This record gives sequence, C-alpha cells and structure tokens, in this order.
Amino acid sequence: MPSPALAAVLGQIDQNLPAALDRLLALLRIPSISTDPAFKPACRQAAEWLAADLATIGFSASLRDTPGHPMVVAHAGDSGPHLLFYGHYDVQPVDPLALWDRDPFDPEIQDTPKGRVIRARGSADDKGQLMTFVEAFRAWKAVHGTLPARITVFLEGEEESGSPSLVPFMHANAAELTADLAMICDTSLYDPETPAIATMLRGLLAEEITIHAANKDLHSGMYGGLAMNPVRVLARIIASLHDDHGRVTVPGFYDGVTELSDAMRAQWQNLAFDHAAMLGDVGLSIPAGEQDRTPLEMIWSRPTCEVNGISGGYEGEGFKTVLPARASAKISFRLVGSQDPVTIRDSFRAMVQSMLPADCQVTYIDRSGSPASQMTISDPAFEKARAALSDEWPKPAAYVGCGGSIPIAGYFKSVLGMDAMLIGFGKDDDQIHSPNEKYDVSSFHKGIRSWARILHRLTDAG
Amino acid sequence: MPSPALAAVLGQIDQNLPAALDRLLALLRIPSISTDPAFKPACRQAAEWLAADLATIGFSASLRDTPGHPMVVAHAGDSGPHLLFYGHYDVQPVDPLALWDRDPFDPEIQDTPKGRVIRARGSADDKGQLMTFVEAFRAWKAVHGTLPARITVFLEGEEESGSPSLVPFMHANAAELTADLAMICDTSLYDPETPAIATMLRGLLAEEITIHAANKDLHSGMYGGLAMNPVRVLARIIASLHDDHGRVTVPGFYDGVTELSDAMRAQWQNLAFDHAAMLGDVGLSIPAGEQDRTPLEMIWSRPTCEVNGISGGYEGEGFKTVLPARASAKISFRLVGSQDPVTIRDSFRAMVQSMLPADCQVTYIDRSGSPASQMTISDPAFEKARAALSDEWPKPAAYVGCGGSIPIAGYFKSVLGMDAMLIGFGKDDDQIHSPNEKYDVSSFHKGIRSWARILHRLTDAG
Repeated sequence: MPSPALAAVLGQIDQNLPAALDRLLALLRIPSISTDPAFKPACRQAAEWLAADLATIGFSASLRDTPGHPMVVAHAGDSGPHLLFYGHYDVQPVDPLALWDRDPFDPEIQDTPKGRVIRARGSADDKGQLMTFVEAFRAWKAVHGTLPARITVFLEGEEESGSPSLVPFMHANAAELTADLAMICDTSLYDPETPAIATMLRGLLAEEITIHAANKDLHSGMYGGLAMNPVRVLARIIASLHDDHGRVTVPGFYDGVTELSDAMRAQWQNLAFDHAAMLGDVGLSIPAGEQDRTPLEMIWSRPTCEVNGISGGYEGEGFKTVLPARASAKISFRLVGSQDPVTIRDSFRAMVQSMLPADCQVTYIDRSGSPASQMTISDPAFEKARAALSDEWPKPAAYVGCGGSIPIAGYFKSVLGMDAMLIGFGKDDDQIHSPNEKYDVSSFHKGIRSWARILHRLTDAG
Repeated sequence: MPSPALAAVLGQIDQNLPAALDRLLALLRIPSISTDPAFKPACRQAAEWLAADLATIGFSASLRDTPGHPMVVAHAGDSGPHLLFYGHYDVQPVDPLALWDRDPFDPEIQDTPKGRVIRARGSADDKGQLMTFVEAFRAWKAVHGTLPARITVFLEGEEESGSPSLVPFMHANAAELTADLAMICDTSLYDPETPAIATMLRGLLAEEITIHAANKDLHSGMYGGLAMNPVRVLARIIASLHDDHGRVTVPGFYDGVTELSDAMRAQWQNLAFDHAAMLGDVGLSIPAGEQDRTPLEMIWSRPTCEVNGISGGYEGEGFKTVLPARASAKISFRLVGSQDPVTIRDSFRAMVQSMLPADCQVTYIDRSGSPASQMTISDPAFEKARAALSDEWPKPAAYVGCGGSIPIAGYFKSVLGMDAMLIGFGKDDDQIHSPNEKYDVSSFHKGIRSWARILHRLTDAG
C-alpha cells in the first residue's frame, strides 16, 4: 500500500490523465525536427511551449539560446535532494513520408488490438517520455502545494542531430546544472511488464563520407569504361568494413571493448531475450552481427558499424545512364566499453584513404562522436528507484544495456560529475525513428505514476 | 565546287540560319523529359510541335499514339531512293538542377571563347541534331520546290527512357517505315574538324536492383548488430562486379565479345585519340577500365558495367541513425559484339542471388536491353556519305565506334531489315546528360549543310 501522501498523488494522476494527454498532443503538433534547418522555428516553438507549461507548475523556466536550438532550463522546489530531469524536445525526420498512415504531426489517440496508443512523430522519442516527469511534478504540486525535492528540468533540442551545443552549454552552466543525481527519460521498458534501468549505453561515432571522381556527372556511354565510377569505390569501402563473421575490420576497432561480468551475463540470461520475436516483428529471422555472440550482446554490449544512408548518381524515376561525379554514405559506429571515438575515426579514415584510387578524392563531414557509458549501480539510489518501479509494474525492474546512444549520460558524468539514472517507458514496437511512431497510453500513464513513486522513494521514508 | 543545284540549297541554308535557330529554341523550350511521368504532357507537346513544323515543309505528318509517348511519322517526296531519318525529341532529366547556370528549358544562344553555342537541355541530345535534317529538307524544298528523294521522318519520344514502344511500333508499321536506308542523327563528330560515321555501337542492358531486409526502417541503436543492413549487401554485390584488373566478373559476361580487325585497329591508331585530354576535361587522369586495353577500346569496343545511381536509408541533410529497410542501385552494362543481353541479365541475377543472405530478398526492374550494332560499311552509300561529309568539313570523315547505345540502329536491321548510317554533329564538350548541355551553332549550321550534301550525293550525280 502506498503512503497516503503518495496515494493522493497517484489518484490525482489517474484523474487528470485526459488533460495530460491533451497537453502532450499539443506538444506533438509542433514539428521540431532538429537535423533539418527548415524546422528551426518549430524547434524554438516546442521549447517555448515547454517553458510556458513548466511555468504553470511553478517552475522558473527559460529558454537558453545556443548556436543551434535553444535549451529549456527550469527550477522548482527549495528543499530535499537536488534532482535533475533530462529529456529532449526535438524529433527525427519523418521520411519516407509515404509510409506513414497519417500526418506525423497530426497526433491522434488510436485504439489498437494491443491497447490505446498516441500516434505521432516524437510520441515515444522523446516528447511523450519527457512529459511523464512533467506530469508527475504537476500532480505532486497540485496535491501537496510544493515539490518534494529541488528539481531542475533540463530539456535539449538537438539530441537527434548529435547534440552539438550540449557540452559547451554544460560547461558554461555547470554550477546551475549540477545536481545530486540526473534522471534521464529516453529509454524503454525491458518488456511490457518489466521496467528497466539502463546501466550500459553504447556510444556513437558518425561520419559522412563522399568519394569524388570526375568534376561533373558523365554520360556512361561516352565515359563508361574510361572514367572511374565513385559508386564502385564507395561500394568497395563499405563491403570491406565487415569480415565474413560480422566483425568490423577497421584496424584497432576492438581496442577497449570489455567483456561482460559473469554476474551481468547471468542476469541477461535470466531475461530470456526473445530475439526471434524482435527480428520477426520487422520481417527478419537471422541475427546478423558477430556470429560468436548472443543476440543480446550484439545490441547491448558489442560495437557495430552500420551504413545509415547511401546516395549517388541518378536516384529518380526511370533510368539515367549517368556516370556519377560523386557518391556519399552516412556511416556510424556504435561503441562500447572504453572504445575511443577519436582513435577509431582516425583509423577509419586511414583505411578509406588506403582504398582510394589515385583519381579519386574523399571528403568527410564529422557528424558526432561520444564514448559509451557505464553507470555506478552501487549507488543506493539505484536500488531505491528499482524498488519504486517494481511497485508500479507487474514484474520487478531490471538493470539492462541499451543499444542506442544517449551521450548525455556520459556528459553528466564527465562534465558535471553526476551519476545518471536512465529510466523510460518506451516499448520495442514504438517504431521510433520509423514511420508511424507511437507511444502507448499505458506507457504514458504508468510512466507518470512511476516518477511519482520514484520521487517519493528518493525523498521520503519510501 | 558544288553543283549549282546544291550551291543554291547551301546558300539558302546560310541565309536562313537565324530563322532556323529561332525554330530550334522554340522546340527546346518544351521540357520533354520522357523518363519522368510528370512531363508526359510536355512530351506530347514536343511531338505536336514537330509534326506541325514538318507539315509546313510539305510533309504529311502525324502523331502516332503508343502506350508511352507518341511517335512522329512524316512522309514527303515521290521519287528517288527512300530514305528514313530518325531522331528523338525526348530529353534527359535535368538534375542536379543546382549545377545549371540557367533554366535548362529557357534556351539561349551564348557567345563563348570557343564560339557561339545553344545552351539548353536537349540542344545536342537530340533536338538540335534532328533539326539539322529537318532544316536541310526545308531549304531544299524552298529552293527546288520538291525533295530529291522519298523521305520518311521518324521521331521517337522514349529514347532516353529505354524506348519501350519502339520495337512494337516498328513491327506494327513495318511496311510504312521500311526504306532503302536509315539515317540516324544522334552521334558526334570525331573531333571539331573531323566528321564521323559510327559503324560500331555498344548495346545496353539496364537493371534496377533493390535489396530488401527488414519490413521498415529500423533504429540502428536498437537493431544495429542484430538486423541485416541491405546497404552492406548491395555494397558487396557492387564491389564484386569488377575484379582488380577492371574486368567484369559476371559469369559468361565476355561470351560474344569480338576483337577488333587489324584494319580497324590501325584506323583507330591513326585517330591519335587523346585520352588524357578527354579525362583531363572532367578532372580525371587515369583510364579506369580493363588495364590491358587502349582507352579507345575501353569506350568503343569493350563492354562495361557501371552503377548509374545508388540510394538507401537517410539521404537528407544532417544525420539519421536509421538502419535502412532497403537499398537500390541502377546498374547498366554496355555490350559489344554479339553479347546477349538476356543471357547476361540471367547470369547477373544468378550472381546476385548467390550473394544474398538468407534474410534478404531482391527485386528487379528490367529497364532495357539491346545488343550492340555493327554496320555493313561495304554498302556504297557509306562511301558516298563519307565523301559528302568530307566536302563540308576541314578533315575527311572517319568510321568510328560509339560508346553510347543507340539501339534504334540494331532495330532497323533486326526488325525492318534496313542498314543504318549514324551521322551526327555533337562535340565531346556538349555535356549531354549533364548540367549546362549545349550544342555549337557551328554544329547546327554545318550539320544542316552536311545533310544537304548527303542528300545530293545519295540521289544525284554527286
């Protein structure tokens, strides 16, 4: 039984769910795609919406300009531990738009065979998630008139485009942002019944590479056979990035990759990960990574190399017998352990250079790089949060890995000296970064309740 | 000295050049891009413009509907040999539009350091060229009141998109289209002073291939390392299409490739082809084809495999950590000798299939296929035409190869039993299929005069 103080907050949350959903839909209508310059005004609009909403809960909230999109920083509460809550208000691009069933920025609550969902770009990643803690604060404030802790909300608008302003902003505002603990809401449940605290996050190194051959597109009849085709060069480079066993071939790539502890390996085995279901959901069946690793290792504790996009020559309707002037690929590496992004970038570029014919040039756009993160789960706050989550959900909370990169966690540690706790309520079928993204209404509702329980445990006798 | 009958026609041509240029500019304003469905009305408009223009010269001209774009067929003259003149009114797409110095469909006559040029998409390929014979007919008719031969004009609107309607149309209209000889105006001068008759044309096999993996784009953090990336598969296939010596690796690919005769090899050596200049013009320096072949062989008498376009995943601004659902490439093969497009397509597809991981599927769009052509230069008409061209230009005309594919020549032979003569006035720097396409005013002017001379030689004492 929750204490009366907590029970009142949980009741308030349940009663006000429709209003909370309305607020989320309003935020989802703002097309805050951070990577595309055309949506810069929309990003600011989302930040302004959030600052205004936080102000209604009693936060002193403001936008802080950066060279990119603004940060939202808000403070409330004057006693208890100092907790910082992080989320991001920017979203992924929506292409291919044709695969969406409705306008990605015209959100709708839909009844589906698996329950009610909020359908929109950003519903799960990350607007729906960040609103879980905002709504928890609102309910607590409404019931008790104050918050149970000193709370800082820190919302970013560049998470989907490499967070270029984040570290400089943290350095410039270190005193204001440093708290006792950071709470990051941008991850998933382990499964629909099992909440999770991510304690191991892969890093990311991203690189855009362009091979240049002729100084213009050529006619493949006139020049075909005589002039070098940059698509051939790029294909050879990409084809050489993995060996036949799925291992990445960039020299030195595995330096700093650590093996799992026996304890964590045992815990992961207990999770009985169903890779066949995960792959089956997207029409696949065969784990494609390093062939001597378990599927859970492939996505949580092993580094990867992926091509995220490739283009060159004529890509329109029909056929054009052009011999392209250049070909480009967006390539990214997921990093683990202490793999160093800078060293790997250098090694990758040296490998590319060694494969370049004399008649070609290569240019790079350095997109982002951040090392992997590993949390200190011996901090008692981790066990308190795990207990709070276990109170709300059908099954006990698990410590898990996370294949995606949430570099913010590493920055909280390296720049501000704070530990971070990664708790989120997304599901595997949320289709984040894909068409028809959704967030379950139950994720949203139980997510809000989870934060209320965590606030209670971290600040009270709970 | 030309005969008075010819001299009068040449004088008429010279006098009326400004009006002829105005007519060409009007035709160039019509954006008849055949491969893009959005330009279907423009294609019909170009056909209608041409039929109306031919009618003013006394041709009985009409549009003939096809499942694609219409043909233009026109007849005039009632005695002398029956000559068919072929050209195409459709043009290539214009992308990348940003690299054009002006609207591709707002033609302009420009003074350049190398002389006056007509700048527009289609100026050289092929509207400017087809208007050379139309203007020659107009001048002849104006001077003599009749034409010196039975002339059929046959203009196609699908040449840049694989000519899907051509062969069925030829079969259905064989009696009307069969003439003593076909004249095709869609090729280039050997050099600015040396006209050419192409006697050897490479064929073309084009294939669009798509590798499908997951049934939607995935998040490379969630799935990276577990799910197969179709860009990797496609890159491996493309990388395997050539060996380290530039030879194509598709099994059986070189079956039917013939070696040059000693006589033709000697003639080609005399042409003193300057491959360094041709490559240097486009910023390259190293012949990239089969390393045991001369540069002229690489483009005229050897088969090739090129990637004309590649796409997959996120290609927009910035970065998106997506694991693509599919990746596509437009791949084409230039064919020579008696290489069989059908056999090679089958062999290519079998090779792709053998490289496909169990979790991936492949689909193809069969874009076009036509064998190479070789002309019967022992026909006396070839030597007459060569003499006529040699009268007009500073240097004697040459028999040459042609790296590009003009499948119409092969169809005239295989479907209608006609030999074809390929004579054109393009230059290597015309930038056909590229931004800023142009056609020299001198190509246009001397091209018109050349056809008048050829008409005279083929039909008279000349």
